[in-house]
Amino acid sequence: MKELVTSIPKLHAGDRLLCGPGPSNVHPQVLEAMRQPINGHLDPDLWNVLLDLVEGLKALWRRLDGVSLCLSASGTSGMEAGIANLTEPGDKVIVIHAGFFGARIAEMARRAQTELVELTAPLGQIVPLDQVQEALKANHDTKLVGVVHAETSTGVRYPLEKLAHVIRATAPDALLLADCVTSLGGEPVETAAWDVDYAYSCSQKSLGCPPGLSPFSISERGLDRIRKRQHPVSFSFDIDLLAKYWLDRPAPYHHTMPILQYYALYEGIRLALEEGLEARWARHEDAGRYFQQQMRDRGYTFLSDPDHQLWELSAVNVPEDVDGKQVQSRFLRELGIEIGGGLGPGAPPIWRVGLMGVNANREAADRVLAAFDAVLPR
Amino acid sequence: MKELVTSIPKLHAGDRLLCGPGPSNVHPQVLEAMRQPINGHLDPDLWNVLLDLVEGLKALWRRLDGVSLCLSASGTSGMEAGIANLTEPGDKVIVIHAGFFGARIAEMARRAQTELVELTAPLGQIVPLDQVQEALKANHDTKLVGVVHAETSTGVRYPLEKLAHVIRATAPDALLLADCVTSLGGEPVETAAWDVDYAYSCSQKSLGCPPGLSPFSISERGLDRIRKRQHPVSFSFDIDLLAKYWLDRPAPYHHTMPILQYYALYEGIRLALEEGLEARWARHEDAGRYFQQQMRDRGYTFLSDPDHQLWELSAVNVPEDVDGKQVQSRFLRELGIEIGGGLGPGAPPIWRVGLMGVNANREAADRVLAAFDAVLPR
Repeated sequence: MKELVTSIPKLHAGDRLLCGPGPSNVHPQVLEAMRQPINGHLDPDLWNVLLDLVEGLKALWRRLDGVSLCLSASGTSGMEAGIANLTEPGDKVIVIHAGFFGARIAEMARRAQTELVELTAPLGQIVPLDQVQEALKANHDTKLVGVVHAETSTGVRYPLEKLAHVIRATAPDALLLADCVTSLGGEPVETAAWDVDYAYSCSQKSLGCPPGLSPFSISERGLDRIRKRQHPVSFSFDIDLLAKYWLDRPAPYHHTMPILQYYALYEGIRLALEEGLEARWARHEDAGRYFQQQMRDRGYTFLSDPDHQLWELSAVNVPEDVDGKQVQSRFLRELGIEIGGGLGPGAPPIWRVGLMGVNANREAADRVLAAFDAVLPR
Repeated sequence: MKELVTSIPKLHAGDRLLCGPGPSNVHPQVLEAMRQPINGHLDPDLWNVLLDLVEGLKALWRRLDGVSLCLSASGTSGMEAGIANLTEPGDKVIVIHAGFFGARIAEMARRAQTELVELTAPLGQIVPLDQVQEALKANHDTKLVGVVHAETSTGVRYPLEKLAHVIRATAPDALLLADCVTSLGGEPVETAAWDVDYAYSCSQKSLGCPPGLSPFSISERGLDRIRKRQHPVSFSFDIDLLAKYWLDRPAPYHHTMPILQYYALYEGIRLALEEGLEARWARHEDAGRYFQQQMRDRGYTFLSDPDHQLWELSAVNVPEDVDGKQVQSRFLRELGIEIGGGLGPGAPPIWRVGLMGVNANREAADRVLAAFDAVLPR
């Protein structure tokens, strides 16, 4: 445009069943919570809400010690906050990756000017644990190991608990950073029992909230690492300052929180606890297993090694003679259903189907299955 | 707490007239826009919404060239994104500050390991332009000058246009970074005409949206500086990647946007353009002048030099025998009105009254005045 506009058109967003890699549809009660009046970030009543929310976050992350808080930004920034706080330039960092988001951890570690060791595997596979063990033996000065628990780009789950054991047994000074963006709320994430030092997630997948926040949890060991830093850390991502803002009273100002997003997260976590985490995980597993079996019955195959297949997200291989993007477009335009495609330039031809949050049930799965049947009749 | 909780109580937020330093109350039509169905961040329909939003952002920032976008985070992060993109370690940076937020720019410049020159003045005053000119002459290699246009902690406006002239005349290679968190939408901010290289704001003050976003605008010269960087920049704050995400089609994935917040911002900007920016500025000026005159008539004084007094925000000196915090508490508890106090450890005894967005009118001013009269009868 050559001139500044004097108006923009009214917004009209179409209805969608969001069964892609996220965002998922928002729980109606979460939307309702966002209609409550905004209280300011320095309002004592809001401070009390935040303290209750912290208890909810601890319960969700299954950790009492360390701190469990939330970054007022996307999961991407949750990832970066972990790298920013837990590494210093020149630190040896191992990143295990076989997908878009794992590669992004490596990219962030590069930008943080760490000494990066990358362990990779073909898409759909995991980097074997013995390979990680060897790398740790060869790099005993490793300060941080980064991995994606549930790789949203491939539908693969990494055996996080076993990885933590390998790290503790081999390189006791290395901290473990785990991307739980797609796993938190949808399957077991036991930060204390598994001994994960820094885990981060998002609001818009299995928690049934709108996108915009990144819940995270950090261990005492992680906090200790931060206290001993030599280099300054980004102000926005400074976990030490954030912890004071969330937990000290009166709260020292850090930033103005996205209050309505926090109301949403509060209600999303309240509902998750009300349902019970185990019941919620079982619901996600049932929906995923059901969808995947139904798709296999129709002759479809999956990108993920079956031993590591996520329930929350399924990466379906696009059959050879099919235009995957066109199918996605017909789902969206004819049926109001969003599913994802491959992510990034090197992505294989896949569809990514997510059954998360309020969509983690057989009814949503059936709507997606019916869409496949309608657009690609057998 | 010694155990993980199994539930958290239901959220009940009290009604508030938000006449502090922000957030302000949200426009009802903005809240309505947030109830539209979420479309994913990779949905072509959303991409079109974002392109319209970009035109709105350009109109708001009054600049066609460069890029005008929005960071999916608070104004604090908008500040940090500017420092992160426009400086490299060792760069000479001048920060002009006489308040909490200006001091924060300096803090971020320190964390970014720049060579920092600080120019300060007493709270309520501005650093004189001839002092800036002298500093620029003494530091001809200055790469960036940072300043707050509307200092939310003191109610002071910096003469931004004149500052830009001084910089261009004295140190042509220095870029100008301006904090417009409290000014954008409430008074003239002419990034192109004034030649401001990087300006950032927030959603929750004069734009009448909920907190959570940081609209920003960067000049061609600023973009050129970014292209010539030697050091990597934070992934979250990488303006080059963000511009591709916002403007290229198909959009290369960067992060998952807080979609409902963008619906809100879209509607907030649509309403601002519908009202007309000049009319909106005049409304803020009228409300501020009215409130300040009424307070002066009651014998109150202000922290700000009258020559530089903001309309959007008034820092009222707390009378000597009055407990300012207690007054704030009574406003909140008895009348449901939020006003601010001094910000930070060294703050003077002040109240900060904001009349911004939907509250920029004499009716809201009258409610605050009535509260002063009720709690502090003359």
